[in-house]
Amino acid sequence: MPSYTAYDIARYVDARIEGDGERQIRGVAPLGVAGLDQLTFLERESLLSRLESAHPGALLVRSGVVLPDFDMTLLRVPDPQIAFGKALDLFRPARRREPGIHATAVIGSGVMLGDDVRIGEHVVIGDDVRIGHRCELEAGVLLGRNVRLGADCQIGHAASVLANTVIGDRVIIHEGVRLGAEGFGYAASSAGAVKVPQIGGCAIGDDVEIGANSTVDRGTLGDTVIGARTKLDNLVHVGHNVQIGEDCMLVAQVGIAGSTRIGDGARLAGQVGVAGHLTIGAGARIVARAAVFKNVPAGATVSGTPARPHRRTLRVGAAAFRLPEALLRLSALEKRLGQGEGDGGKDA
Amino acid sequence: MPSYTAYDIARYVDARIEGDGERQIRGVAPLGVAGLDQLTFLERESLLSRLESAHPGALLVRSGVVLPDFDMTLLRVPDPQIAFGKALDLFRPARRREPGIHATAVIGSGVMLGDDVRIGEHVVIGDDVRIGHRCELEAGVLLGRNVRLGADCQIGHAASVLANTVIGDRVIIHEGVRLGAEGFGYAASSAGAVKVPQIGGCAIGDDVEIGANSTVDRGTLGDTVIGARTKLDNLVHVGHNVQIGEDCMLVAQVGIAGSTRIGDGARLAGQVGVAGHLTIGAGARIVARAAVFKNVPAGATVSGTPARPHRRTLRVGAAAFRLPEALLRLSALEKRLGQGEGDGGKDA
Amino acid sequence: MPSYTAYDIARYVDARIEGDGERQIRGVAPLGVAGLDQLTFLERESLLSRLESAHPGALLVRSGVVLPDFDMTLLRVPDPQIAFGKALDLFRPARRREPGIHATAVIGSGVMLGDDVRIGEHVVIGDDVRIGHRCELEAGVLLGRNVRLGADCQIGHAASVLANTVIGDRVIIHEGVRLGAEGFGYAASSAGAVKVPQIGGCAIGDDVEIGANSTVDRGTLGDTVIGARTKLDNLVHVGHNVQIGEDCMLVAQVGIAGSTRIGDGARLAGQVGVAGHLTIGAGARIVARAAVFKNVPAGATVSGTPARPHRRTLRVGAAAFRLPEALLRLSALEKRLGQGEGDGGKDA
Repeated sequence: MPSYTAYDIARYVDARIEGDGERQIRGVAPLGVAGLDQLTFLERESLLSRLESAHPGALLVRSGVVLPDFDMTLLRVPDPQIAFGKALDLFRPARRREPGIHATAVIGSGVMLGDDVRIGEHVVIGDDVRIGHRCELEAGVLLGRNVRLGADCQIGHAASVLANTVIGDRVIIHEGVRLGAEGFGYAASSAGAVKVPQIGGCAIGDDVEIGANSTVDRGTLGDTVIGARTKLDNLVHVGHNVQIGEDCMLVAQVGIAGSTRIGDGARLAGQVGVAGHLTIGAGARIVARAAVFKNVPAGATVSGTPARPHRRTLRVGAAAFRLPEALLRLSALEKRLGQGEGDGGKDA
Repeated sequence: MPSYTAYDIARYVDARIEGDGERQIRGVAPLGVAGLDQLTFLERESLLSRLESAHPGALLVRSGVVLPDFDMTLLRVPDPQIAFGKALDLFRPARRREPGIHATAVIGSGVMLGDDVRIGEHVVIGDDVRIGHRCELEAGVLLGRNVRLGADCQIGHAASVLANTVIGDRVIIHEGVRLGAEGFGYAASSAGAVKVPQIGGCAIGDDVEIGANSTVDRGTLGDTVIGARTKLDNLVHVGHNVQIGEDCMLVAQVGIAGSTRIGDGARLAGQVGVAGHLTIGAGARIVARAAVFKNVPAGATVSGTPARPHRRTLRVGAAAFRLPEALLRLSALEKRLGQGEGDGGKDA
Repeated sequence: MPSYTAYDIARYVDARIEGDGERQIRGVAPLGVAGLDQLTFLERESLLSRLESAHPGALLVRSGVVLPDFDMTLLRVPDPQIAFGKALDLFRPARRREPGIHATAVIGSGVMLGDDVRIGEHVVIGDDVRIGHRCELEAGVLLGRNVRLGADCQIGHAASVLANTVIGDRVIIHEGVRLGAEGFGYAASSAGAVKVPQIGGCAIGDDVEIGANSTVDRGTLGDTVIGARTKLDNLVHVGHNVQIGEDCMLVAQVGIAGSTRIGDGARLAGQVGVAGHLTIGAGARIVARAAVFKNVPAGATVSGTPARPHRRTLRVGAAAFRLPEALLRLSALEKRLGQGEGDGGKDA
């Protein structure tokens, strides 16, 4: 890893320095582990005691937080976690490898490549593909016919970007992603399932990230769309014709059935499922593991199966937890009033 | 895309024409978008208003539906959606590429290839494999030793078909599928988990389709079986020794634990889980996100966790939703009768 | 398959023989199917009737179980299932292929290879990788820069082992696994999600097995850790910085959010989800489909969403099942006491 002065780092993350700006910082580490040549951050004052186990050389910390009198350089910032994330860029091992086209890659006809592109080992690129400047394709990637990649995209090992997919700038597609796969299109008929060919495409906005082994099906006629800056975690499924807005987050193992629309800024936590042909409003929050069978209004927070307003789910859950005793109380009342119990003791 | 007359299309989907049969149709589009040289379909009369935003050249529509007096050619059919699916074949970009074996493919000994087979870039085929006529293997596919493929199969990019898997005709294996992987076979012992080697195979019937990144484990001794015409969506897991019947549908992210049997025509909606060693009867319907811990009778519809008859699940859910208020009513009754509340107000 | 005498098998699984030790056994099969030259096992006496449909040549069975007077060789063992698993080793088709480096593999600089390693077709190995003796890398595998593999590891087709991952001895990584992928690291900010680069690694203990298409993200700063002998099934997701102990089992489609710790010997059944920053105690059991939002004590068994002690979940579930009728009883009591119903009949 490279080495920077505390002053270099402060300038990079826009921090105000307190202490020795010339101190050499050679890496990053968690609070309580970072040593004298490392940078760390204090997210909450309640974590101050962790400074006792190890003294960092430099600490990202909010203004006004009073610190013990250690020999460390303070970098004052409004949000230490975000500043730390930014500082990590400095210490990150260079992902970029030398540009160039590996001898084992197979490139179709009519392919247009930008400057400084890297095409890895055993990559296969179909006809009429266009690849923007500085894109990196790891080993084993397939780009189907007529794919368009903007600038500065990264495609991980063995990922598939299938025919007619259009991808913006700075998009990251992780290992094993299947983008533009032919989805699950069947119409029920008296003669069994009839396959409906999926001839649409996939349109992926700028700065989107798609996690490892996730799948995004192409549209039936039009496009499946993922808006700018939206992030998908690993093993997420997005069905055909789904429209996801900008700045959304879909955490691991989420599944979205076909033709559903998700508004800007929505957040779907882990293992959430959303049925098809629904609308999730902008800014909605779907709590982990919720199963959504109805539209969700903009800004709402829902949870549970079936998903309902989160407060109601919590209240119903708390009441249900007390239910066994409540049934005993009900039976006691009935007994006292001499009324026969409807289903006393039966456990169907 | 190619061009057809309305008459060509009518003949292909077996429709009765009203209007200009010579009209040239150059593509397909959704209702409300399709223009004068495109085909679309009217699924329900309630969607008629969409014809106001754009006039299609040709419309698939049921007999008897009265339409506004636009200049369009009507193709009368019993089921417009199914006819549309069929018509899509005409306009679909040819998936088939030239037959042949790419120079970068590695082929084992004793391999038998049918006519007009396409073996893509960097494909690896083990010894003693047999591949039927007109099969297409996309780039990066692995076929293990002794695999058998029927005619007209398609295997997507980077998919694995492991040793001894037997596949019927017209089977579609999408990108990244792992078919015949060695599953999770452990016997608990006092000395920790003991691995049980999985030496069975996988048998896949005619016209099966398996979605992207799904996994199907091979059997322990016998075969894991998927019956003819059964369709698996993306990211589905099928454990070892599972037997799935014919004409079933398993929607995205379904998981089936080992040795379970699923009868013909069963439908498992998204994110359903089924425990091991169970029997799901023919024609059963499992509602999305249900978790099945007991056998399901043929023809039953079940939902919830644990899965129960769907009507009961709905009724219990509706009652639970009213539970917080019901507990207040119970407390009010107790108060009125001067009885102490059992757990009044406690929220464990 | 090879052939062994009953005596050979008895010696291999440490069994006591009753009957003809010279009988030739040429394969294995399930009970009720195994024939005169095959081995099978009797797990429970209740399965004895299956011996009527087919007579095995050799039967693994507990001491003391009385059997019908067939001409078969008995191998008496304390646990027939475990002994059978061990015996399968003898009949398993040799997975090992000839050691060697395929001509199509691409190997970086500074790579150190142990003895008798097999590097398959189109494998890509980054700089400074070390690979232990007798490892087997199937076709299309990627090992990133600086990866360390112990001895006797097996890596399946198209799997990715990304930079800086350290793997112990006898580890099995199945097809399509993504190990050390860059996880979902974002800090929320007023300007949208800010990416936190993930510069840590992954550390995998001896005898770990990771199922097909599973994903394990690398750490943010430190390592994501999977302890010795822990087994992951297919399509499992392990987030960044997760620490999994030794001898754990994570069944198919389980998801573990970032920074959670799981103690030794914990078992997570299928489709379980665990939120981030939690602690699951040693030996805990998480029932299938549970969603864990709070710490779980060592040795506890939890189930449900949100996960609670399993007995409580069962009791609450049984009570909820009777709830519709209980609400009718409550209304009847209220009516009898002349009290207005709070929400009589409303179904919100």
